[in-house]
Amino acid sequence: MHRHIVPDIVSDQQQFSPVSAGMSVRAAAILMADKRIGAVMVTEGTRLVGIFSERDVLNRVVAKGLDPDSTMVGAVMTPDPVTLGPSATAEEALELMQSRGFRHLPVVDGDRIIAICSIRDFFAAVNEELAEDLKQRDEIMFGTGYGA
Amino acid sequence: MHRHIVPDIVSDQQQFSPVSAGMSVRAAAILMADKRIGAVMVTEGTRLVGIFSERDVLNRVVAKGLDPDSTMVGAVMTPDPVTLGPSATAEEALELMQSRGFRHLPVVDGDRIIAICSIRDFFAAVNEELAEDLKQRDEIMFGTGYGA
Repeated sequence: MHRHIVPDIVSDQQQFSPVSAGMSVRAAAILMADKRIGAVMVTEGTRLVGIFSERDVLNRVVAKGLDPDSTMVGAVMTPDPVTLGPSATAEEALELMQSRGFRHLPVVDGDRIIAICSIRDFFAAVNEELAEDLKQRDEIMFGTGYGA
Repeated sequence: MHRHIVPDIVSDQQQFSPVSAGMSVRAAAILMADKRIGAVMVTEGTRLVGIFSERDVLNRVVAKGLDPDSTMVGAVMTPDPVTLGPSATAEEALELMQSRGFRHLPVVDGDRIIAICSIRDFFAAVNEELAEDLKQRDEIMFGTGYGA
């Protein structure tokens, strides 16, 4: 069975912690460390304006010698990120992310922000799906008890 | 067919860029950004002593307010990381990493360091393997031309 982003990967009620473009990199890093997340969505009001990740902290702040206290998230985020809708499948999400080199993907339903997913979420879902399909074939080919 | 770390995920001749424990976080970050990698192995001579990742830059340096220029990698790395040998399978590596929450895994052959792999490398290999096994079953069940 195909996994869809909602409800198989995330629920529609998922909690997420957006940050504003005017937040300092330091404050965003503290929030990300606290929540144990590798990326956050950047919002203006209810509008998604960017995505900010631990890779950005490494590449665009620390490696560039910028000061995390005086550098705002808006200056080093990836603006206008590509998004997917809740009914997209895990395969579609994974294909998009692999082809574009994304590691995080915001999920939005029209103007409504639902969640942010990591490529590992989708890999795990696709993996599970393939393993189940394989088990099903083996049950058909070898009988239900095979390998049990 | 089962994928093994060497040669299916990495070659035995893979280039990697270890850093020393006495290198500053800033210098390591510049190297990681330059090589476009999320984690580096930390070595003392030819011995693996730790692993340092972009997550460590976020959690242990920026979120903690440490100065990347005066903080040494050795102070914020994960010491004595778990490793796997080159003949381990992608499934074994993936299981280990998922159960322990690792995102990077050094591959060593006895005392010899071979490479560092990310969980995405293993997810991709296991996925490919499952998809191939599934295709094989479908060819047996439905004939070679099915779906072509």
